[in-house]
Amino acid sequence: MASGDESLSELIPVPGVRLGTVAAGVRKKGGRDLVLMEVAESTNCAAVFTRNAFCAAPVTVARDNLAACAHRPRYLLINAGNANAGTGSAGIAAARSSVAAVAAAAGVDASRVLPFSTGVIGEPLPVARIEEAVPAVIAALSEDGWADAARGILTTDTRPKWHSVRFIAEGRDCVVTGFAKGAGMIRPDMATMLAYIATDAAVEPAPLQQILSECADRSFNRITVDGDTSTNDACILLATGQAGNTPVADRDSPSYSALRDAIEEVCVALAQAIVRDGEGASKFVTVSVNGGRSERECLDVAFTIAHSPLVKTALFASDPNWGRILAAIGRTGLPDLQVEGVTLYLNEILIAENGGRAGGYTEEQGVIAMAPEEIVIRVELGRGEAAASVWTTDLSYDYVRINAEYRT
Amino acid sequence: MASGDESLSELIPVPGVRLGTVAAGVRKKGGRDLVLMEVAESTNCAAVFTRNAFCAAPVTVARDNLAACAHRPRYLLINAGNANAGTGSAGIAAARSSVAAVAAAAGVDASRVLPFSTGVIGEPLPVARIEEAVPAVIAALSEDGWADAARGILTTDTRPKWHSVRFIAEGRDCVVTGFAKGAGMIRPDMATMLAYIATDAAVEPAPLQQILSECADRSFNRITVDGDTSTNDACILLATGQAGNTPVADRDSPSYSALRDAIEEVCVALAQAIVRDGEGASKFVTVSVNGGRSERECLDVAFTIAHSPLVKTALFASDPNWGRILAAIGRTGLPDLQVEGVTLYLNEILIAENGGRAGGYTEEQGVIAMAPEEIVIRVELGRGEAAASVWTTDLSYDYVRINAEYRT
Repeated sequence: MASGDESLSELIPVPGVRLGTVAAGVRKKGGRDLVLMEVAESTNCAAVFTRNAFCAAPVTVARDNLAACAHRPRYLLINAGNANAGTGSAGIAAARSSVAAVAAAAGVDASRVLPFSTGVIGEPLPVARIEEAVPAVIAALSEDGWADAARGILTTDTRPKWHSVRFIAEGRDCVVTGFAKGAGMIRPDMATMLAYIATDAAVEPAPLQQILSECADRSFNRITVDGDTSTNDACILLATGQAGNTPVADRDSPSYSALRDAIEEVCVALAQAIVRDGEGASKFVTVSVNGGRSERECLDVAFTIAHSPLVKTALFASDPNWGRILAAIGRTGLPDLQVEGVTLYLNEILIAENGGRAGGYTEEQGVIAMAPEEIVIRVELGRGEAAASVWTTDLSYDYVRINAEYRT
Repeated sequence: MASGDESLSELIPVPGVRLGTVAAGVRKKGGRDLVLMEVAESTNCAAVFTRNAFCAAPVTVARDNLAACAHRPRYLLINAGNANAGTGSAGIAAARSSVAAVAAAAGVDASRVLPFSTGVIGEPLPVARIEEAVPAVIAALSEDGWADAARGILTTDTRPKWHSVRFIAEGRDCVVTGFAKGAGMIRPDMATMLAYIATDAAVEPAPLQQILSECADRSFNRITVDGDTSTNDACILLATGQAGNTPVADRDSPSYSALRDAIEEVCVALAQAIVRDGEGASKFVTVSVNGGRSERECLDVAFTIAHSPLVKTALFASDPNWGRILAAIGRTGLPDLQVEGVTLYLNEILIAENGGRAGGYTEEQGVIAMAPEEIVIRVELGRGEAAASVWTTDLSYDYVRINAEYRT
């Protein structure tokens, strides 16, 4: 189950990027599960990784290698089906070994290969199978390999996720294209999510990292399916420089805004696609909290609502059980919250104000408001000027089924 | 569904307490839904209430009245089926009106009647029906009314919860008996839970409050079903003084320890009974975190594990998916956590150590460890001397069903 339709935007290849996807036998169910992404020599790379203390072996190795190659990798090796997480020192050795196999075959230093894994936690990575598949995945590299790669990295996802945006830098046509995976264990701080975004614009490393950090914070870090965060998350932004523009060096560069806006659009589109494909999702829910004293407290309220199992089961039932939303606001723990000043709307129907049900509200209105697949929960805190939104899903039978059956 | 059997301990009446239970028509499904608890004139009362900012009208009125009567109430009026929460000023008026009806009929000041409600949030309290039932519920008062009262306050609970403990104070036989309701929206800070505990021992107000606060913190505040907290929670401790002992005045009183231990035993038994009857629960799970730098960080880790939907669905599936537990520990955000020092046991089977799966562990052992209805997840943080445990349940299809269908 997933909300929304499956229509995907146009997928535009990025000059300077080639991708290959093969079946290496990592995924128990079979199918293509190994992706190699090759980028041009000139490419700069920015990255954000999970903050989970139990970060997976590939996260450790990718972070180390990225520093060692001065943010100039040539290859990204991604497997689905096994997260290589909770695998201790053997997991680190496995990640390094698979990286070395690519480096040897491609003739680059091992530090210029970054590993990524997603799938079951705690199982040994079948590294021999990955290494055996390296020649095939190198042979498969193609400028048109994007759609296959976007499918190859999926786990419990029901559909691939990609987005492309064109923009102009110094009069040159440029493109940003990204693809991502993730359907469960999603919450802020990059939870079980892999996202690869590339542009042919030339961008210096510092502004590239700044743009990625800002855009991830306003997209991937504002989605939640179940409040769990992953050991493996990573979001990578690559700038191949093939467009030939003067490299974007800072915020004052003439192309900075166009570049940043294009990347943010791709990040938000991918983040929302992940929520729409949330495990068992039947609703796409925007929780918008306004009138707070700070963006932080608006986010706290929004995430408390978005994580509440009682709110999420009511959304699944299309039940306008607004009392559960008020209860979630109330337990967020905002200092000096005056509940009489809080106003609540469901799909722009005024539901609650002055600490209780709104005067003109009827249950029939609530039922109508909750019927659509897309729901906006809008909270007006009435105590400041700050605002923030997060995106989430409902909690359905299918969520339980998917996560109770995941390993069987 | 609920875990454990339904066997209840002996239910011993408390001298100085009478209870009546009738059907007032508050609950949509019918059945007895109105309880009146009468305590002797000499009774002292301690209380802890929800910390939710959207606290329900009866919580506000009970708190006000308790102060106004100097913690010497005579009557507690409890209805199930409607929480009188999210009802604004009309809800306050409704609670005050029902209290006044009892006060008038019983001939006491209105401040000596405390109201409590549990059930659906946001619906107007059918106060006329409650007031019409007041003469009947007064007529029903009986020293043996405990079991009926314990059943009358239930909502989504599948069974009543009570516990009695005898103890000796100054050579006199005393008793503590408590009953409670709660099956969902359970988490620390007194979430959707009502508990009434009475003893015939004589206890001064200050030590009575101290004992209740301490015992609630080690029992009701350490259980969680779904992480949601309620607008209506209350835990009341009544000391009728009928045993005739010298009133317990402070920690140095000779009977203090026996009294405190008896009350803690009742609180823990009721708290665990609530978890065992958790909405959709098929497992009773103790999360025990040891070796932390502080009790606070042990509780943070324990609750992060206990609230994780991925851990809870794995428990439902009896799946030893220990990677999800490590991921939950990792995202708790403990400063300087060395994951290599963390050790994990499931029902005393060593599962993970040194950042990964334990050397001798096999999946077969994990399956055996997860099969029982009672599961102990033991985490050794290996960085200090502090410890803390919480109790929780799994996340099942039934949880979703119960909460998606609750109002229909």
